[in-house]
Amino acid sequence: MTSGRASRDKIQEVGTSGPLAVIAGAGDLPLVVAEEVRGTGRELFVIEVEGECDADLSAFSRVRLPIGAAGRLKVLLQERGCRDVFMAGTFRRPRFSDIEWDMGTVKALSSIMRLKRGGDDKVANGVVRIFEGEGFRIVGPREVVPGFIATAGPLGSVRPERRARADIAHGARAIESMGHLDIGQAVVALDGRIVAVEAAEGTDAMIGRCAMLRAAGRIAAPSPSGVVVKAAKPGQELRLDMPVVGVETIRAAAEVGLAGIAVQAGSVLLPRIGEIRRAADEAGLFVVGVEIGGGPDRRR
Amino acid sequence: MTSGRASRDKIQEVGTSGPLAVIAGAGDLPLVVAEEVRGTGRELFVIEVEGECDADLSAFSRVRLPIGAAGRLKVLLQERGCRDVFMAGTFRRPRFSDIEWDMGTVKALSSIMRLKRGGDDKVANGVVRIFEGEGFRIVGPREVVPGFIATAGPLGSVRPERRARADIAHGARAIESMGHLDIGQAVVALDGRIVAVEAAEGTDAMIGRCAMLRAAGRIAAPSPSGVVVKAAKPGQELRLDMPVVGVETIRAAAEVGLAGIAVQAGSVLLPRIGEIRRAADEAGLFVVGVEIGGGPDRRR
Repeated sequence: MTSGRASRDKIQEVGTSGPLAVIAGAGDLPLVVAEEVRGTGRELFVIEVEGECDADLSAFSRVRLPIGAAGRLKVLLQERGCRDVFMAGTFRRPRFSDIEWDMGTVKALSSIMRLKRGGDDKVANGVVRIFEGEGFRIVGPREVVPGFIATAGPLGSVRPERRARADIAHGARAIESMGHLDIGQAVVALDGRIVAVEAAEGTDAMIGRCAMLRAAGRIAAPSPSGVVVKAAKPGQELRLDMPVVGVETIRAAAEVGLAGIAVQAGSVLLPRIGEIRRAADEAGLFVVGVEIGGGPDRRR
Repeated sequence: MTSGRASRDKIQEVGTSGPLAVIAGAGDLPLVVAEEVRGTGRELFVIEVEGECDADLSAFSRVRLPIGAAGRLKVLLQERGCRDVFMAGTFRRPRFSDIEWDMGTVKALSSIMRLKRGGDDKVANGVVRIFEGEGFRIVGPREVVPGFIATAGPLGSVRPERRARADIAHGARAIESMGHLDIGQAVVALDGRIVAVEAAEGTDAMIGRCAMLRAAGRIAAPSPSGVVVKAAKPGQELRLDMPVVGVETIRAAAEVGLAGIAVQAGSVLLPRIGEIRRAADEAGLFVVGVEIGGGPDRRR
């Protein structure tokens, strides 16, 4: 028995389920998660998704696979003894021409066909079903990086004033009533109006639009004013697709003269939360966790 | 009695209510409307709003006024015998520092204060109340340019295929369920997803965003695909604020590879409708009028 095996057995004793597989998409999140998990002592195995993963994960045990190589992925995970799978970062919807048609993929074809139409929630729920049907367990940020999840109350030293609190409440109501549409996770509210709604463009692009809105006179209030409100959708698959607010989001909001960011407590991921707190304090922005829609979905 | 007076009396005999005042904001619409009205033989008086009006209206009897010069506007309209007022084009929300504080403005102050917060609908309804309180009548496109309002069915020679018809239905449902939020008048629907929602940025900017979405892989379907669906909001003040789809909208949609545009029959303005039909046919796009939300609000 190697020392690696011995160490793995020891970890299993303290309650984990073998090495954690991290399927790495685009952005910084796979690296953030991998570093956090390594800090806990749990063994890691990283699968870099070709054409998506752009972080430097060379410090970790890893392989590179094309998207859709379902058969090879399954064999690799089984060989490594990985039952728990964490999907980190963003993944584009693959074009059919991008998919590597190995035998595992063909087997998953009927599931994939059902996913081809429909919003992100349907796709995420389908991905979970496919993995679980093969004996794996999809784990999410609540299990893997609980310290990076928003809690109720202000994160840094800046707190929302009365006007911003009204915008937070208005934005939260808008998000709640759009939830069933499987669209935006975020809006910008300002003085009783919703001036921007996120759909497929992503939160940072939506925030960036506020610069154009101010320049064109479509937002007349001087800055700082306006609040980003971001939440999960009802029934959103938070293990695979938890909304994220990162340092870049803080900087984008500061750049366009917004007053702050409100996130749904329990359901928004704040990776490298200490850096986010510092960036917000430096920019004079508030970041505050709020209860939205009766609080987070506790199932995941 | 001058010949001008005689001619005005003659027009009143055939059923109009004296000269039509056109308050001209930004864009091409004031010119389109003025030309149409002149074609009917009705007398016109154009008020160009300073800093907003950018069309060449030199062919018409006109004055230029700063926004918020309520007192001077009232006197001018009364001197010219204008009871009917048509507001054409777009108006930015004025900053308080832009308002000319004449006596009429001060009188309207309490009304304006009530308008300062709240969405477009509240502002529009407030503007109508202010004008009507002073004895004027706000008239809208249905009365002034009925030939430029969308009717049910295809406008040009291109018709939506089955996939586009499903997107139209999905987009229409999304708009209906967002109506009470006083936000978007338009969405882009594609293969069962809402990929863009309009808030304060305007329809053409929302459409332009689809180029970025395709480039970033957030829309994977090859073009032409995707449908703009545009409608009025429930209770929207259509006399002041009827949604508009113009030639520029057609060109924007063609440029980003959308399949077509669906507009709410009876509640969307298609200025220079013949040019819109030609532009759509040339671009291979459909423009189709559809019933949304139980049909148009017939009160206005």
